[in-house]
Amino acid sequence: MSDIAYEPLSVENLGARLGTITAITDLLGTDTQSWDIKEVGDGNLNLVFVVKSPAGSLIVKQALPYVRLVGDSWPLPLKRAFFEYHALIRQAKRDPGTVPEVYHFDEQQALIVMEYFTPHKILRYRLMAGEKTEGMAKVLGNFCARTLFRGSDLSMKTAEKKADAALFLQSVELCDITETLVFSDPYFKAERNHHNPEIDSLVQTLRRDVDLKVEAHHLKSKFCSNGETMLHGDFHTGSVMATDTETKIIDPEFALYGPMGFDIGMLLANFWMSYYSQPAHAEKPGARDAFQEWILQQVEEIWSVFCTEFAHLWRTERTGILYEHTLYEDQGQALASEQALAQRLTDIWQDTLGFAGIELIRRTLSLAHNADNEAIGDEKLRAVGETHGLLLARELVVGRRGMPSISQVHDLVRQIGAGAAL
Amino acid sequence: MSDIAYEPLSVENLGARLGTITAITDLLGTDTQSWDIKEVGDGNLNLVFVVKSPAGSLIVKQALPYVRLVGDSWPLPLKRAFFEYHALIRQAKRDPGTVPEVYHFDEQQALIVMEYFTPHKILRYRLMAGEKTEGMAKVLGNFCARTLFRGSDLSMKTAEKKADAALFLQSVELCDITETLVFSDPYFKAERNHHNPEIDSLVQTLRRDVDLKVEAHHLKSKFCSNGETMLHGDFHTGSVMATDTETKIIDPEFALYGPMGFDIGMLLANFWMSYYSQPAHAEKPGARDAFQEWILQQVEEIWSVFCTEFAHLWRTERTGILYEHTLYEDQGQALASEQALAQRLTDIWQDTLGFAGIELIRRTLSLAHNADNEAIGDEKLRAVGETHGLLLARELVVGRRGMPSISQVHDLVRQIGAGAAL
Repeated sequence: MSDIAYEPLSVENLGARLGTITAITDLLGTDTQSWDIKEVGDGNLNLVFVVKSPAGSLIVKQALPYVRLVGDSWPLPLKRAFFEYHALIRQAKRDPGTVPEVYHFDEQQALIVMEYFTPHKILRYRLMAGEKTEGMAKVLGNFCARTLFRGSDLSMKTAEKKADAALFLQSVELCDITETLVFSDPYFKAERNHHNPEIDSLVQTLRRDVDLKVEAHHLKSKFCSNGETMLHGDFHTGSVMATDTETKIIDPEFALYGPMGFDIGMLLANFWMSYYSQPAHAEKPGARDAFQEWILQQVEEIWSVFCTEFAHLWRTERTGILYEHTLYEDQGQALASEQALAQRLTDIWQDTLGFAGIELIRRTLSLAHNADNEAIGDEKLRAVGETHGLLLARELVVGRRGMPSISQVHDLVRQIGAGAAL
Repeated sequence: MSDIAYEPLSVENLGARLGTITAITDLLGTDTQSWDIKEVGDGNLNLVFVVKSPAGSLIVKQALPYVRLVGDSWPLPLKRAFFEYHALIRQAKRDPGTVPEVYHFDEQQALIVMEYFTPHKILRYRLMAGEKTEGMAKVLGNFCARTLFRGSDLSMKTAEKKADAALFLQSVELCDITETLVFSDPYFKAERNHHNPEIDSLVQTLRRDVDLKVEAHHLKSKFCSNGETMLHGDFHTGSVMATDTETKIIDPEFALYGPMGFDIGMLLANFWMSYYSQPAHAEKPGARDAFQEWILQQVEEIWSVFCTEFAHLWRTERTGILYEHTLYEDQGQALASEQALAQRLTDIWQDTLGFAGIELIRRTLSLAHNADNEAIGDEKLRAVGETHGLLLARELVVGRRGMPSISQVHDLVRQIGAGAAL
């Protein structure tokens, strides 16, 4: 199949086109007539098929030459499948068992055949429904620690890290989406923006806020230049799939080498948006109070697990060219590497808060909003959670260097949610 | 010539091998018998020939497959000529007239034929001789501002910047030299280190200094990951050629994408080393006092010119994806971009001081020392300047965030030089 020109798959031709690939028939059997094929792509960019047979199941994800959400007026290179494939196999190595196993990759057709997580649902929708997932924070915190640490000069051979960073620097168009829609568009009246008219006054205030706009671009500068590690690049609650007891991570097509705090920051922001949107999703007033607290507990645990695992890897797998044992432990100065660790975690923490604020703002003011808020039909009701998120965001972006702990941040989250700032 | 396998040039065969290349014969004429060929490479790595004819002159620089200083026991890829060529043509575009014009590049033979600066001498030796160069600070400050600004996401189209960063990420072995010899070796008893036995006690103290060793690796981390702009990469006073009135910059084979403060930091450190070594080169006690002050004036002017030109480019050429006009000027908030500029210059300043400290230390403790000190035969006398440099370095690396201005740093430089800290 890889010899023919790119052509989008369809429910009708998928069996004929993929039915001779051993890696696929090993799982589904060769009787393509028995395959049950559904197109389920609800994302913004790609075709996604669930294919089931009596023998098994899998996902076929194929890039389209444009942004699906917008149409062919916004072209986007097929090569993003290449970057997603390369990110997936690296993540699988760095944190086994959390991302879908890749069964087959066809660069020409821009398609990845991979593990189907079932009965998992997108975490964002589970949170909107008030559904808890056991063990989730542990999976997410460990995933961040392991992929961030093991993809960096703290761990990798530097020649491999440099080659890898160069590879992902080819992902110009996907990075451009983040650079533009996340870091710039929200801060002025850009063409693709839209926002709830009920928050218009706050939006104008934020777009006049010099400190906010300057800090936003200090963070953009870090995002563009500081290639510390391979990031997922789009690590929100829509890139997580979960059941009551299992958590999996998908969709790293925006992968890039960037600053460590970016993934965790984006993730935390999405939990905080979920937190603020809960009252609007509540079956009756107060019905989600406990669930809101559960969300904050998850965030605290994600950060705590991240720090613990990052520190564990720092102590046991620090084999790269940074903070070498020769300088510290081998001189009987193990506390020197602990001092360095504490300072690096402080840096990551401040970046995390900054990027979280950036994500909160872009999800409310830029092109791609999040279902947590968008599913709230009543604009006035939606505006409440959106306003809380934006007020928090401003404090995080501008004040990130003065927020020592997650509990202090959550004190602020609750104060804002309780209307103290309104 | 580029079809045949790599072979080092010699004074004997250079005429025959290069005498058919039009770009060369256009300058020297075709009568290779009239060429006057001298091998003058006094650097650590390469063959360098000066070729003169009645019609003109040029430099032929050819990489060797090993480190010349050490021999073939230390192999080093020929590809460094490729990176030097690519750095030279970019620098020429970004700051016309300061680097040698390239007449011819042969990747296979790892050779660059370029402009011969004559009667220019290496700046380091001019400083050792107490010779001043008019206009030097302006050239060096402007060169830093223009190359750093114009090679970054502040100015370039980001697709070009990413492709360029990826290109230079291939320079693994040259980066490894900096990463190892500059940032790690000095801080423990590494095999290739050597130092003056007269400073042994201070060296031991520095190698036990936890804060210093931790900060050194925070700076190494920035060097390895923060690819803000194309750096010269080896910007010391040995990479500058000067007459009484002209200043030129050569030898960017260590070019890489890295943090903005690195080049200026290395440069300032070399001036401070020159400052501290002056008394040992003085014709009689006190004979270099005025020249020492001239050196500090040059440093102040380099920093001041750098800031002025960087600000000028910030205001007139900020066409990249960072701190976009759409967010600031176009909203009638020009002071927002001034706020961002001031903060970025502060960041660059702090990095500059940190990298300067790193350079001071490695030039005294690691493999490659500098002639300013090495030319002082008397170990006790040499130890005085070395000690001053190391004491300054420690303060710069650990205290860089608390040093607001160059005059405050120079107050410290003078205090240490006057023996206050001994």
